[in-house]
Formats: sequence, C-alpha cells, structure tokens
Amino acid sequence: MDTSALRFNSDGLIAVIAQEPPADGGRVLMLAYMNRESLAATLSTGKMHYWSRSRGKLWLKGESSGHTQEVLAWFKDCDGDALLFHVRQHGGAACHTGFQSCFFQPMRPDGTPTPVAETPVFDPAEVYGR
Amino acid sequence: MDTSALRFNSDGLIAVIAQEPPADGGRVLMLAYMNRESLAATLSTGKMHYWSRSRGKLWLKGESSGHTQEVLAWFKDCDGDALLFHVRQHGGAACHTGFQSCFFQPMRPDGTPTPVAETPVFDPAEVYGR
Repeated sequence: MDTSALRFNSDGLIAVIAQEPPADGGRVLMLAYMNRESLAATLSTGKMHYWSRSRGKLWLKGESSGHTQEVLAWFKDCDGDALLFHVRQHGGAACHTGFQSCFFQPMRPDGTPTPVAETPVFDPAEVYGR
Repeated sequence: MDTSALRFNSDGLIAVIAQEPPADGGRVLMLAYMNRESLAATLSTGKMHYWSRSRGKLWLKGESSGHTQEVLAWFKDCDGDALLFHVRQHGGAACHTGFQSCFFQPMRPDGTPTPVAETPVFDPAEVYGR
C-alpha cells in the first residue's frame, strides 16, 4: 500500500468520514480515525476498519453487531489529511445507539440539542446484548 | 453558548464536516476544525468559521475568496466529539483548488490516486490572485 499522498498526524492517525453514496441518500454516517494498519485492512478486505482511540486497537466496524460497512469508493482531500469513504452500511445503521447515522442529534443556534426527529433502526440491547 | 454536550480535544478543537444538504446533492465539501471561539462565531453569524491549525487563527471560510458557507442546520455525533454542518456553499466550490469539494481526488485500492474526473468550478489564480 502506497500512502505517500496521505498525511497521518503525530499519533499516526487520519480522520475518516463514512458516507452513504450521494445517489443513495448521501447521509454522513460517522467520523472516525484510521492508522496505516486499519487503512491497509480496509483496502485489502473492502470492509471499513478503524482505529479505536478509546480501546487502543484495530476495529472492524460491525465486528460485534455484524453491521459492516462495505467500501464503494474512497477519496483523499486536497491536503491529504482527511479521507472520505462511500460505503454500503449493512444492517441499516452505523451508530451503536441504533440510529442510522451517528449525527442524529440536531442542534440549536445556542448550542443546545433539539428533540431527535427520527427513530432508531435497531434496538442496541438486542444487537449488542445477544 | 452552551457547549456542555460537546467534547473538544486537548487542543480545544472539534472535528467539523461541512456538507451540502442531502436534498441538494449531499456532497461532503470539507473537513476542518473549530474551537469554542469559531463555533460561537459560526452560530452567531450563520457563516462557517473554522480554526486554522496551520495559521493558528480564527478563519471565516470565504474571507479571501468571498465564497462563504451559510449554515442551514447542524448536528453533533453520538459521543459529542464531531459536528456535521449542512451548508450552502456560495461561489459553488469549497476547495481552495477550485474544485467543488476538497475530496475531489478518487483513490485506488492500492492507495494511489486515480485521474480526477471533474473540473474545477473556478480558477484559483483569479479568485485568490486579485
């Protein structure tokens, strides 16, 4: 894997946006981070692998839930320090809370949350508790 | 401004995705960072203000080009450490290179760039050179 066009930060990480393809709705699903190892695993398997900063380990998205993200296309940004992946989200939801997108919480201009208008796609207790 | 639901990192920054509304194409335009000051300026003016890490200063997007980003809606993610803004991009392009999106560079599975299929919306020399 040639990563010479990419700029990983001092922790060896790069920010990654996962999005439905615009033709399929275009919803931004989540923002997470990859290191070189997780990028290599993503590109070789076609399934999104992130670096979990909280757990300090390689993280196959969907390893617990089965809700993997299939890579459709990917892009680097103009200065090479962020990546955008178009993915097919299996199971219908990217968020561990059961919502389709991790960005389910609309906010007010004063910085406070507004009521969430959508409903979760799955019940986390069923998906993660099994 | 109440930012108690948000988690800024140890540098006082939070990652911010700017996207066209899905109904208008849904293209992800850029990833940048805000500190509390830039978030407050964004919310009070309705125009995207970032924190420039390279220049170490508050950055009104479009301050040089006139190509501002008008806030339409914003969302926090499930753990409060990333924000998504739906914006109207004035001037038609978010990227300083003239492309609509900073993520104009498609990549191959081996990590190398592929030829760019789109054309810039504007000529940077005209916009920034005036």
